[in-house]
Amino acid sequence: MALNVVVFVGGVGGAKLAYGLAHILPPENLTIIVNTGDDFWHYGLRVCPDLDTIMYTLSGLVNKTNGWGIDGDTRAVLDAMQRYGEAPWFQLGDQDIATHLLRTQALADGETLTQITTKLNTALGVQHRVLPMTDAPVATMVDTVDQGELAFQTYFVRHRWQPVVKSLRFEGVEAAAVTPEVRAALQSADVILIGPSNPWLSIAPILAVPGMRELILAYDVPRVAVSPIIGGKAVKGPAAKLMVELGYEQTAQAVADYYGEVINGFVVDTVDAGLSLGVQHTANFEIIMNSESDRISVAKNVLQWIQAWV
Amino acid sequence: MALNVVVFVGGVGGAKLAYGLAHILPPENLTIIVNTGDDFWHYGLRVCPDLDTIMYTLSGLVNKTNGWGIDGDTRAVLDAMQRYGEAPWFQLGDQDIATHLLRTQALADGETLTQITTKLNTALGVQHRVLPMTDAPVATMVDTVDQGELAFQTYFVRHRWQPVVKSLRFEGVEAAAVTPEVRAALQSADVILIGPSNPWLSIAPILAVPGMRELILAYDVPRVAVSPIIGGKAVKGPAAKLMVELGYEQTAQAVADYYGEVINGFVVDTVDAGLSLGVQHTANFEIIMNSESDRISVAKNVLQWIQAWV
Repeated sequence: MALNVVVFVGGVGGAKLAYGLAHILPPENLTIIVNTGDDFWHYGLRVCPDLDTIMYTLSGLVNKTNGWGIDGDTRAVLDAMQRYGEAPWFQLGDQDIATHLLRTQALADGETLTQITTKLNTALGVQHRVLPMTDAPVATMVDTVDQGELAFQTYFVRHRWQPVVKSLRFEGVEAAAVTPEVRAALQSADVILIGPSNPWLSIAPILAVPGMRELILAYDVPRVAVSPIIGGKAVKGPAAKLMVELGYEQTAQAVADYYGEVINGFVVDTVDAGLSLGVQHTANFEIIMNSESDRISVAKNVLQWIQAWV
Repeated sequence: MALNVVVFVGGVGGAKLAYGLAHILPPENLTIIVNTGDDFWHYGLRVCPDLDTIMYTLSGLVNKTNGWGIDGDTRAVLDAMQRYGEAPWFQLGDQDIATHLLRTQALADGETLTQITTKLNTALGVQHRVLPMTDAPVATMVDTVDQGELAFQTYFVRHRWQPVVKSLRFEGVEAAAVTPEVRAALQSADVILIGPSNPWLSIAPILAVPGMRELILAYDVPRVAVSPIIGGKAVKGPAAKLMVELGYEQTAQAVADYYGEVINGFVVDTVDAGLSLGVQHTANFEIIMNSESDRISVAKNVLQWIQAWV
């Protein structure tokens, strides 16, 4: 019998591990819980970048060069907006817009984000369960030194994560709740994983949902993070830059410290084998996931290592 | 000095006359008041088919083969919807969707349909004033013999106007009001025209806006309709079929009777020269508008004829 695995993820980095896990675990044994702090309204559409990156990755539709969006997508809608004087700064492909339209309409019709996420994923043939961290709208807000507080996508995409970050907050999270679906997944989890996503931008919003931490810690199961920092550098994105700005050392160890009691296991890359991590269970192996087979072998190695100590 | 002209129109047929008028009248002398009874929500977008047909026609973006939509538009968004099990029955091109997104967002932000229509038209270089008949949502509802009451686009596009019509009503029109912009245009009009649009489906909703009829009749000016029926047939669309179903004769004369006191002038095609129309001023000339030059010459002939009797 396969273990019941729950994995917390953000976008591109987490999607790679989720893809590897989905390749080796049957649908009923894997639940992917996704950050929705990046979600925002754009041209009246509810855009959920991390949920869609996971869905497009697992369905095989993803643009493999970018790691997000749909392969071969066009941008006729955005180009036409320019005729009206708009200067679109967030890439929305035409095929991608179909996703946003259906989601926006379903939300307006009173469906939960969990329901519409399941519907969209199922329609695209994704059999493993993909769940938003909560059904309530949560907005990651980034306070910056020079430009004040910015909405996440303004910081991340419009300003290409260049502003220096002072602090982060998750607007609306106090009113958010763990969904019945997330609760059920965590309650039946044999293993809880945290993908190599940005701990502050992608994982922290999930952990900030009231009740989430308690649910993670409620059972004595392996709770293992895969480091997003390798040799002091972020594989992708602003993680390392952000760590400096928020006063952390740029090391995998600082990530482990940040997760604290949430994890009891930590996987680093072989280049970080020498670090003293202060986590109960640690392992090191190649965790860079460039190819499809990398993703599968990282997922396999993580699960095999965990099975050895449970 | 050019006359101040107001023209009431629906979609494709009316757009041809509006195009001709815009060609010969300076922007400040022409106001085009457009039916919005066809407007509807589709995939969460506010779609205004007649307003867009007018805008695309006047801006030159229009697909000239169809008479609606944007030339060279693609359908990546709708095709992608099929992946999710949708079966789109109303054609929304990708470039067209940009229009609907901006309009929907502006309406959600509290702009009036008049404001957003002006903004969109101006951005596309349309200098003549295009106004919705009202800012309130009005929905043409079609009661049919076999399928009960259908929303207009369900009747018109989904069922290709094949159901037999019993009656029409304009949902919401009681609560609609003439806008200050429409009022001002009518109050300064030297000539009021009714385009060769469907009298029951395109012009009746406009005339049903409370106060509209009174404004039209308030001044002793030429009020001239161009017949949509030529030799007992509709140039395009369901007008003739509908006339039979609603108990009218399929003639230009029945159109003139239907307009009644609203008009004091009526233009028919030369093939209908023999009809006894019961309207104070009548004229006949070629009114089929196949080519661009047809549109201009029909507009010119109508205005010249009117100028001869004022």
